[in-house]
Amino acid sequence: MNKDTYEMLEAYMRSCMKDSAHDREHIYRVLYVALDIAKTEARVDYDVLICACLLHDIGRQEQIENQELSHAQVGAEKAGRFLREHSFAAEFADRVSECIRAHSYRANHAPRSIESKILFDADKIDVAGAMGIARTLMYQGRVCEPLYQVNPDGLVSDGDNDINPSFFQEYKYKLENIYDKFFTVRGTEIASQRRQAAVDFYNSILAEVHGSYQCGRKHLAEIME
Amino acid sequence: MNKDTYEMLEAYMRSCMKDSAHDREHIYRVLYVALDIAKTEARVDYDVLICACLLHDIGRQEQIENQELSHAQVGAEKAGRFLREHSFAAEFADRVSECIRAHSYRANHAPRSIESKILFDADKIDVAGAMGIARTLMYQGRVCEPLYQVNPDGLVSDGDNDINPSFFQEYKYKLENIYDKFFTVRGTEIASQRRQAAVDFYNSILAEVHGSYQCGRKHLAEIME
Repeated sequence: MNKDTYEMLEAYMRSCMKDSAHDREHIYRVLYVALDIAKTEARVDYDVLICACLLHDIGRQEQIENQELSHAQVGAEKAGRFLREHSFAAEFADRVSECIRAHSYRANHAPRSIESKILFDADKIDVAGAMGIARTLMYQGRVCEPLYQVNPDGLVSDGDNDINPSFFQEYKYKLENIYDKFFTVRGTEIASQRRQAAVDFYNSILAEVHGSYQCGRKHLAEIME
Repeated sequence: MNKDTYEMLEAYMRSCMKDSAHDREHIYRVLYVALDIAKTEARVDYDVLICACLLHDIGRQEQIENQELSHAQVGAEKAGRFLREHSFAAEFADRVSECIRAHSYRANHAPRSIESKILFDADKIDVAGAMGIARTLMYQGRVCEPLYQVNPDGLVSDGDNDINPSFFQEYKYKLENIYDKFFTVRGTEIASQRRQAAVDFYNSILAEVHGSYQCGRKHLAEIME
Protein backbone atom coordinates (compact mmCIF):
# COMPACT_ATOMS: atom_id res chain seq x y z
CA MET A 1 0.00 0.00 0.00
CA ASN A 2 1.31 3.45 -0.72
CA LYS A 3 1.16 6.39 1.65
CA ASP A 4 -1.54 8.25 -0.29
CA THR A 5 -3.88 5.26 -0.22
CA TYR A 6 -3.24 4.75 3.49
CA GLU A 7 -3.98 8.40 4.22
CA MET A 8 -7.14 8.36 2.11
CA LEU A 9 -8.45 5.29 3.98
CA GLU A 10 -7.40 6.80 7.32
CA ALA A 11 -9.22 10.05 6.52
CA TYR A 12 -12.39 8.12 5.62
CA MET A 13 -12.13 6.13 8.89
CA ARG A 14 -11.69 9.36 10.86
CA SER A 15 -14.67 10.98 9.14
CA CYS A 16 -16.85 7.98 10.11
CA MET A 17 -15.60 8.07 13.73
CA LYS A 18 -15.32 11.81 14.26
CA ASP A 19 -17.29 11.77 17.51
CA SER A 20 -15.12 9.22 19.23
CA ALA A 21 -11.46 9.85 19.90
CA HIS A 22 -11.26 6.65 22.03
CA ASP A 23 -12.51 4.49 19.25
CA ARG A 24 -10.01 6.00 16.83
CA GLU A 25 -7.08 5.01 19.06
CA HIS A 26 -8.58 1.50 19.19
CA ILE A 27 -8.24 1.40 15.38
CA TYR A 28 -4.52 2.11 15.52
CA ARG A 29 -3.97 -0.45 18.29
CA VAL A 30 -5.79 -3.08 16.23
CA LEU A 31 -3.78 -2.19 13.13
CA TYR A 32 -0.45 -2.36 14.98
CA VAL A 33 -1.25 -5.67 16.68
CA ALA A 34 -2.52 -7.08 13.38
CA LEU A 35 0.83 -6.25 11.78
CA ASP A 36 2.58 -8.05 14.65
CA ILE A 37 0.45 -11.17 14.09
CA ALA A 38 0.85 -10.93 10.31
CA LYS A 39 4.63 -11.28 10.59
CA THR A 40 4.15 -14.84 11.84
CA GLU A 41 1.67 -15.90 9.15
CA ALA A 42 2.31 -16.89 5.53
CA ARG A 43 0.66 -15.36 2.45
CA VAL A 44 -0.88 -12.33 4.14
CA ASP A 45 -2.17 -9.67 1.76
CA TYR A 46 -1.09 -6.56 3.62
CA ASP A 47 -3.23 -4.25 1.50
CA VAL A 48 -6.38 -6.16 2.44
CA LEU A 49 -5.30 -6.42 6.07
CA ILE A 50 -4.40 -2.74 6.54
CA CYS A 51 -7.53 -1.58 4.77
CA ALA A 52 -9.75 -3.93 6.83
CA CYS A 53 -8.10 -2.82 10.11
CA LEU A 54 -8.56 0.87 9.33
CA LEU A 55 -12.21 0.46 8.31
CA HIS A 56 -13.39 -2.33 10.63
CA ASP A 57 -15.42 -0.10 12.98
CA ILE A 58 -16.84 2.46 10.54
CA GLY A 59 -20.33 1.05 11.15
CA ARG A 60 -20.23 1.76 14.93
CA GLN A 61 -22.26 4.96 14.79
CA GLU A 62 -25.11 3.22 12.94
CA GLN A 63 -25.22 0.48 15.59
CA ILE A 64 -25.24 3.06 18.39
CA GLU A 65 -28.23 4.76 16.74
CA ASN A 66 -30.01 1.46 16.08
CA GLN A 67 -29.06 -1.45 18.32
CA GLU A 68 -30.64 -3.93 15.92
CA LEU A 69 -27.97 -3.19 13.34
CA SER A 70 -24.65 -5.04 13.44
CA HIS A 71 -21.73 -2.64 13.10
CA ALA A 72 -19.78 -5.43 11.40
CA GLN A 73 -22.45 -5.85 8.72
CA VAL A 74 -22.96 -2.09 8.26
CA GLY A 75 -19.19 -1.50 8.22
CA ALA A 76 -18.64 -4.26 5.65
CA GLU A 77 -21.22 -2.70 3.33
CA LYS A 78 -19.92 0.86 3.82
CA ALA A 79 -16.32 -0.23 3.22
CA GLY A 80 -17.24 -2.22 0.09
CA ARG A 81 -19.15 0.74 -1.34
CA PHE A 82 -16.38 3.23 -0.49
CA LEU A 83 -13.66 1.06 -2.04
CA ARG A 84 -15.61 0.48 -5.27
CA GLU A 85 -16.38 4.19 -5.55
CA HIS A 86 -12.67 4.89 -5.18
CA SER A 87 -11.66 2.54 -7.99
CA PHE A 88 -10.40 -0.39 -5.95
CA ALA A 89 -10.96 -3.75 -7.68
CA ALA A 90 -14.26 -5.46 -6.81
CA GLU A 91 -12.38 -8.56 -5.63
CA PHE A 92 -10.26 -6.43 -3.26
CA ALA A 93 -13.35 -4.67 -1.90
CA ASP A 94 -15.05 -8.04 -1.33
CA ARG A 95 -12.07 -9.41 0.58
CA VAL A 96 -11.95 -6.33 2.83
CA SER A 97 -15.71 -6.56 3.39
CA GLU A 98 -15.41 -10.22 4.37
CA CYS A 99 -12.83 -9.34 7.05
CA ILE A 100 -15.01 -6.58 8.48
CA ARG A 101 -18.18 -8.70 8.40
CA ALA A 102 -16.46 -11.51 10.33
CA HIS A 103 -14.64 -9.46 13.00
CA SER A 104 -17.51 -9.33 15.49
CA TYR A 105 -18.60 -12.09 17.90
CA ARG A 106 -22.17 -11.08 17.09
CA ALA A 107 -21.67 -11.74 13.39
CA ASN A 108 -22.74 -15.11 12.04
CA HIS A 109 -19.70 -15.13 9.79
CA ALA A 110 -16.68 -16.96 11.12
CA PRO A 111 -13.41 -15.56 9.77
CA ARG A 112 -12.09 -17.70 6.91
CA SER A 113 -9.31 -15.79 5.15
CA ILE A 114 -6.03 -15.29 6.99
CA GLU A 115 -6.58 -11.51 6.91
CA SER A 116 -9.99 -11.85 8.58
CA LYS A 117 -8.55 -14.19 11.23
CA ILE A 118 -5.80 -11.66 11.99
CA LEU A 119 -8.27 -8.77 12.22
CA PHE A 120 -10.53 -10.81 14.51
CA ASP A 121 -7.63 -11.68 16.82
CA ALA A 122 -6.17 -8.14 16.87
CA ASP A 123 -9.59 -6.69 17.71
CA LYS A 124 -10.11 -9.20 20.53
CA ILE A 125 -6.64 -8.56 21.95
CA ASP A 126 -7.86 -5.03 22.70
CA VAL A 127 -10.33 -6.65 25.13
CA ALA A 128 -7.52 -8.64 26.81
CA GLY A 129 -5.15 -7.59 29.57
CA ALA A 130 -5.02 -4.19 31.19
CA MET A 131 -6.37 -2.53 28.03
CA GLY A 132 -9.51 -4.69 28.17
CA ILE A 133 -10.01 -3.64 31.80
CA ALA A 134 -9.51 0.04 30.96
CA ARG A 135 -11.84 0.03 27.95
CA THR A 136 -14.55 -1.79 29.92
CA LEU A 137 -14.33 0.66 32.83
CA MET A 138 -14.43 3.68 30.52
CA TYR A 139 -17.45 2.25 28.71
CA GLN A 140 -19.22 1.62 32.00
CA GLY A 141 -18.48 5.15 33.14
CA ARG A 142 -19.99 6.44 29.91
CA VAL A 143 -23.22 4.43 30.25
CA CYS A 144 -23.36 4.88 34.06
CA GLU A 145 -23.09 1.23 35.04
CA PRO A 146 -21.75 0.48 38.53
CA LEU A 147 -18.49 -1.22 39.46
CA TYR A 148 -20.24 -3.98 41.41
CA GLN A 149 -23.53 -5.09 42.81
CA VAL A 150 -24.20 -5.32 46.53
CA ASN A 151 -25.91 -8.56 47.65
CA PRO A 152 -28.96 -8.55 49.93
CA ASP A 153 -26.59 -9.36 52.85
CA GLY A 154 -24.84 -6.02 52.21
CA LEU A 155 -21.64 -7.61 50.91
CA VAL A 156 -20.14 -7.16 47.46
CA SER A 157 -20.92 -9.69 44.73
CA ASP A 158 -17.88 -10.95 42.80
CA GLY A 159 -19.89 -10.70 39.56
CA ASP A 160 -20.47 -14.44 39.14
CA ASN A 161 -24.15 -15.19 38.49
CA ASP A 162 -25.06 -11.50 38.67
CA ILE A 163 -28.15 -10.53 36.71
CA ASN A 164 -27.59 -6.78 36.77
CA PRO A 165 -24.76 -5.15 34.82
CA SER A 166 -21.56 -4.07 36.52
CA PHE A 167 -17.81 -4.14 35.90
CA PHE A 168 -17.48 -7.31 37.99
CA GLN A 169 -20.25 -9.00 35.99
CA GLU A 170 -18.64 -7.99 32.68
CA TYR A 171 -15.30 -9.33 33.91
CA LYS A 172 -16.75 -12.71 34.93
CA TYR A 173 -18.97 -13.14 31.88
CA LYS A 174 -16.73 -11.76 29.18
CA LEU A 175 -13.22 -10.52 29.96
CA GLU A 176 -12.21 -13.63 31.90
CA ASN A 177 -13.21 -15.96 29.08
CA ILE A 178 -11.71 -14.57 25.91
CA TYR A 179 -8.29 -16.17 26.07
CA ASP A 180 -9.03 -19.44 24.26
CA LYS A 181 -10.94 -17.86 21.37
CA PHE A 182 -8.15 -16.76 19.07
CA PHE A 183 -7.51 -18.05 15.56
CA THR A 184 -3.76 -17.41 15.22
CA VAL A 185 -0.85 -18.72 17.27
CA ARG A 186 0.64 -15.23 17.70
CA GLY A 187 -2.77 -13.80 18.67
CA THR A 188 -3.13 -16.45 21.37
CA GLU A 189 0.41 -15.70 22.53
CA ILE A 190 -0.07 -11.91 22.80
CA ALA A 191 -3.38 -12.35 24.64
CA SER A 192 -1.92 -14.82 27.10
CA GLN A 193 1.05 -12.51 27.79
CA ARG A 194 -1.48 -9.86 28.79
CA ARG A 195 -3.83 -12.10 30.74
CA GLN A 196 -2.20 -11.92 34.17
CA ALA A 197 -2.53 -8.11 34.31
CA ALA A 198 -6.31 -8.42 33.98
CA VAL A 199 -6.54 -11.25 36.52
CA ASP A 200 -4.40 -9.32 38.99
CA PHE A 201 -6.46 -6.15 38.61
CA TYR A 202 -9.76 -7.95 39.14
CA ASN A 203 -8.42 -9.84 42.16
CA SER A 204 -6.98 -6.64 43.66
CA ILE A 205 -10.10 -4.53 43.33
CA LEU A 206 -12.31 -7.37 44.54
CA ALA A 207 -10.09 -7.85 47.60
CA GLU A 208 -10.06 -4.10 48.34
CA VAL A 209 -13.78 -3.65 48.14
CA HIS A 210 -14.88 -6.99 49.55
CA GLY A 211 -12.53 -6.61 52.50
CA SER A 212 -13.76 -3.09 53.25
CA TYR A 213 -17.44 -4.04 53.15
CA GLN A 214 -16.93 -7.17 55.24
CA CYS A 215 -14.92 -5.52 58.03
CA GLY A 216 -16.85 -2.27 57.86
CA ARG A 217 -20.30 -3.81 58.14
CA LYS A 218 -19.17 -6.01 61.02
CA HIS A 219 -17.72 -3.04 62.86
CA LEU A 220 -20.80 -0.91 62.15
CA ALA A 221 -23.06 -3.62 63.58
CA GLU A 222 -20.91 -3.77 66.73
CA ILE A 223 -21.03 -0.06 67.44
CA MET A 224 -24.66 0.49 66.46
CA GLU A 225 -26.93 0.69 69.48
CA MET B 1 -25.60 6.03 67.03
CA ASN B 2 -28.87 4.17 66.87
CA LYS B 3 -30.27 2.48 63.78
CA ASP B 4 -33.03 5.05 63.21
CA THR B 5 -30.58 7.95 63.21
CA TYR B 6 -28.26 6.07 60.83
CA GLU B 7 -31.12 5.34 58.47
CA MET B 8 -32.36 8.93 58.58
CA LEU B 9 -28.87 10.24 57.70
CA GLU B 10 -28.48 7.56 55.03
CA ALA B 11 -31.82 8.50 53.46
CA TYR B 12 -30.80 12.17 53.38
CA MET B 13 -27.47 11.26 51.76
CA ARG B 14 -29.27 9.12 49.15
CA SER B 15 -31.73 11.92 48.39
CA CYS B 16 -28.81 14.31 47.76
CA MET B 17 -27.03 11.76 45.52
CA LYS B 18 -29.98 10.23 43.75
CA ASP B 19 -28.50 10.67 40.27
CA SER B 20 -25.28 8.87 41.01
CA ALA B 21 -25.25 5.23 42.04
CA HIS B 22 -21.43 5.17 41.77
CA ASP B 23 -20.99 7.99 44.18
CA ARG B 24 -23.31 6.33 46.67
CA GLU B 25 -21.15 3.19 46.77
CA HIS B 26 -18.15 5.46 47.33
CA ILE B 27 -19.90 6.72 50.50
CA TYR B 28 -20.17 3.21 51.92
CA ARG B 29 -16.56 2.40 51.06
CA VAL B 30 -15.41 5.57 52.81
CA LEU B 31 -17.55 4.79 55.85
CA TYR B 32 -16.27 1.22 56.11
CA VAL B 33 -12.60 2.21 55.70
CA ALA B 34 -13.10 5.05 58.21
CA LEU B 35 -14.35 2.52 60.77
CA ASP B 36 -11.27 0.40 60.10
CA ILE B 37 -8.98 3.39 60.72
CA ALA B 38 -11.00 4.48 63.76
CA LYS B 39 -10.30 1.19 65.54
CA THR B 40 -6.62 2.18 65.74
CA GLU B 41 -7.19 5.71 67.05
CA ALA B 42 -8.05 6.88 70.56
CA ARG B 43 -11.03 9.08 71.54
CA VAL B 44 -12.94 8.84 68.26
CA ASP B 45 -16.51 10.13 68.43
CA TYR B 46 -18.22 7.51 66.29
CA ASP B 47 -21.43 9.53 65.97
CA VAL B 48 -19.53 12.47 64.45
CA LEU B 49 -17.45 10.16 62.26
CA ILE B 50 -20.35 8.10 60.89
CA CYS B 51 -22.44 11.20 60.27
CA ALA B 52 -19.57 12.99 58.50
CA CYS B 53 -18.79 9.93 56.33
CA LEU B 54 -22.42 9.55 55.26
CA LEU B 55 -22.83 13.23 54.42
CA HIS B 56 -19.35 14.17 53.15
CA ASP B 57 -20.28 14.35 49.46
CA ILE B 58 -23.82 15.78 49.63
CA GLY B 59 -22.54 18.99 48.01
CA ARG B 60 -21.31 17.20 44.84
CA GLN B 61 -24.31 18.06 42.69
CA GLU B 62 -23.90 21.78 43.43
CA GLN B 63 -20.23 21.66 42.39
CA ILE B 64 -21.11 19.79 39.17
CA GLU B 65 -23.61 22.54 38.33
CA ASN B 66 -21.19 25.33 39.27
CA GLN B 67 -17.48 24.48 39.15
CA GLU B 68 -16.62 27.54 41.24
CA LEU B 69 -18.34 26.03 44.26
CA SER B 70 -16.45 23.65 46.54
CA HIS B 71 -18.48 20.52 47.27
CA ALA B 72 -16.74 20.33 50.64
CA GLN B 73 -17.90 23.83 51.59
CA VAL B 74 -21.42 23.34 50.21
CA GLY B 75 -21.69 19.92 51.85
CA ALA B 76 -20.51 21.27 55.21
CA GLU B 77 -23.18 23.97 55.13
CA LYS B 78 -25.94 21.61 53.97
CA ALA B 79 -25.03 19.03 56.62
CA GLY B 80 -24.91 21.65 59.39
CA ARG B 81 -28.31 23.00 58.39
CA PHE B 82 -29.86 19.53 58.10
CA LEU B 83 -28.53 18.43 61.48
CA ARG B 84 -29.74 21.57 63.27
CA GLU B 85 -33.16 21.25 61.65
CA HIS B 86 -33.32 17.66 62.90
CA SER B 87 -32.58 18.60 66.50
CA PHE B 88 -28.96 17.57 66.73
CA ALA B 89 -26.92 19.73 69.10
CA ALA B 90 -25.26 22.75 67.48
CA GLU B 91 -21.85 21.60 68.73
CA PHE B 92 -22.37 18.17 67.08
CA ALA B 93 -23.47 19.79 63.80
CA ASP B 94 -20.37 22.03 63.88
CA ARG B 95 -18.04 19.10 64.40
CA VAL B 96 -19.60 17.20 61.50
CA SER B 97 -19.40 20.31 59.30
CA GLU B 98 -15.72 20.74 60.15
CA CYS B 99 -14.99 17.18 58.98
CA ILE B 100 -16.84 17.69 55.72
CA ARG B 101 -15.26 21.10 55.06
CA ALA B 102 -11.75 19.67 55.51
CA HIS B 103 -12.10 16.43 53.51
CA SER B 104 -11.18 17.90 50.12
CA TYR B 105 -7.70 18.73 48.83
CA ARG B 106 -9.23 21.86 47.32
CA ALA B 107 -10.44 23.08 50.70
CA ASN B 108 -8.26 25.54 52.54
CA HIS B 109 -9.11 23.81 55.79
CA ALA B 110 -6.65 21.18 56.94
CA PRO B 111 -8.29 18.46 59.04
CA ARG B 112 -7.75 19.06 62.76
CA SER B 113 -10.06 16.77 64.74
CA ILE B 114 -9.35 13.06 64.71
CA GLU B 115 -12.71 12.44 62.99
CA SER B 116 -11.84 14.85 60.18
CA LYS B 117 -8.41 13.23 59.74
CA ILE B 118 -10.03 9.81 59.52
CA LEU B 119 -12.61 11.00 56.96
CA PHE B 120 -9.87 12.66 54.89
CA ASP B 121 -7.78 9.49 54.86
CA ALA B 122 -10.71 7.16 54.14
CA ASP B 123 -11.82 9.36 51.25
CA LYS B 124 -8.30 9.44 49.78
CA ILE B 125 -7.91 5.67 50.13
CA ASP B 126 -10.70 5.40 47.56
CA VAL B 127 -8.28 7.07 45.09
CA ALA B 128 -5.52 4.55 45.96
CA GLY B 129 -4.92 1.09 44.54
CA ALA B 130 -7.09 -0.68 42.00
CA MET B 131 -10.16 1.26 43.16
CA GLY B 132 -8.45 4.57 42.35
CA ILE B 133 -7.62 3.27 38.87
CA ALA B 134 -11.20 2.07 38.31
CA ARG B 135 -12.83 5.29 39.52
CA THR B 136 -10.48 7.40 37.40
CA LEU B 137 -11.18 5.34 34.26
CA MET B 138 -14.95 5.46 34.83
CA TYR B 139 -14.80 9.22 35.33
CA GLN B 140 -12.78 9.64 32.15
CA GLY B 141 -15.24 7.50 30.22
CA ARG B 142 -18.06 9.71 31.49
CA VAL B 143 -16.37 12.98 30.45
CA CYS B 144 -14.92 11.48 27.22
CA GLU B 145 -11.24 11.92 28.04
CA PRO B 146 -8.79 9.59 26.29
CA LEU B 147 -6.61 6.89 27.82
CA TYR B 148 -3.40 8.45 26.54
CA GLN B 149 -1.99 11.10 24.26
CA VAL B 150 -0.02 10.28 21.14
CA ASN B 151 3.19 12.28 20.71
CA PRO B 152 4.09 14.03 17.45
CA ASP B 153 6.38 11.05 16.66
CA GLY B 154 3.31 8.79 16.67
CA LEU B 155 4.30 7.00 19.89
CA VAL B 156 2.33 6.93 23.13
CA SER B 157 3.13 9.43 25.88
CA ASP B 158 3.51 7.91 29.35
CA GLY B 159 1.56 10.88 30.80
CA ASP B 160 4.57 12.65 32.32
CA ASN B 161 4.65 16.34 31.33
CA ASP B 162 1.45 15.96 29.28
CA ILE B 163 -0.58 19.13 28.91
CA ASN B 164 -3.76 17.52 27.66
CA PRO B 165 -5.91 15.35 29.92
CA SER B 166 -5.80 11.56 29.73
CA PHE B 167 -5.76 8.59 32.07
CA PHE B 168 -1.96 8.41 31.87
CA GLN B 169 -1.67 12.11 32.73
CA GLU B 170 -4.04 11.71 35.69
CA TYR B 171 -2.05 8.72 36.89
CA LYS B 172 1.29 10.57 36.73
CA TYR B 173 0.02 13.85 38.19
CA LYS B 174 -2.33 12.56 40.84
CA LEU B 175 -2.77 8.81 41.45
CA GLU B 176 0.95 8.10 41.68
CA ASN B 177 1.53 10.78 44.30
CA ILE B 178 -1.13 10.31 46.95
CA TYR B 179 0.60 7.75 49.13
CA ASP B 180 2.50 10.07 51.46
CA LYS B 181 -0.41 12.40 52.17
CA PHE B 182 -2.30 10.56 54.89
CA PHE B 183 -2.86 11.76 58.44
CA THR B 184 -3.30 8.45 60.26
CA VAL B 185 -0.95 5.49 60.62
CA ARG B 186 -3.66 3.00 59.63
CA GLY B 187 -4.68 5.15 56.65
CA THR B 188 -1.08 5.19 55.41
CA GLU B 189 -0.90 1.43 55.94
CA ILE B 190 -4.10 0.61 54.00
CA ALA B 191 -3.07 2.91 51.12
CA SER B 192 0.40 1.39 50.90
CA GLN B 193 -1.06 -2.14 50.91
CA ARG B 194 -3.07 -1.13 47.84
CA ARG B 195 -0.33 0.81 46.07
CA GLN B 196 1.30 -2.02 44.11
CA ALA B 197 -1.96 -2.91 42.35
CA ALA B 198 -2.13 0.60 40.87
CA VAL B 199 1.55 0.63 39.91
CA ASP B 200 1.23 -2.79 38.26
CA PHE B 201 -1.85 -1.77 36.30
CA TYR B 202 -0.27 1.42 34.98
CA ASN B 203 2.94 -0.39 34.03
CA SER B 204 0.99 -3.17 32.31
CA ILE B 205 -1.24 -0.95 30.21
CA LEU B 206 1.66 1.33 29.30
CA ALA B 207 3.73 -1.67 28.20
CA GLU B 208 0.85 -3.09 26.16
CA VAL B 209 0.06 0.09 24.32
CA HIS B 210 3.58 1.48 24.01
CA GLY B 211 4.86 -1.85 22.71
CA SER B 212 2.08 -2.11 20.14
CA TYR B 213 2.59 1.40 18.79
CA GLN B 214 6.36 1.05 18.66
CA CYS B 215 6.44 -2.29 16.81
CA GLY B 216 3.39 -1.51 14.71
CA ARG B 217 4.61 1.84 13.41
CA LYS B 218 8.03 0.36 12.60
CA HIS B 219 6.44 -2.49 10.71
CA LEU B 220 4.01 -0.17 8.91
CA ALA B 221 6.91 2.02 7.76
CA GLU B 222 8.74 -1.06 6.42
CA ILE B 223 5.84 -2.33 4.33
CA MET B 224 4.63 1.04 3.09
CA GLU B 225 5.80 1.77 -0.43
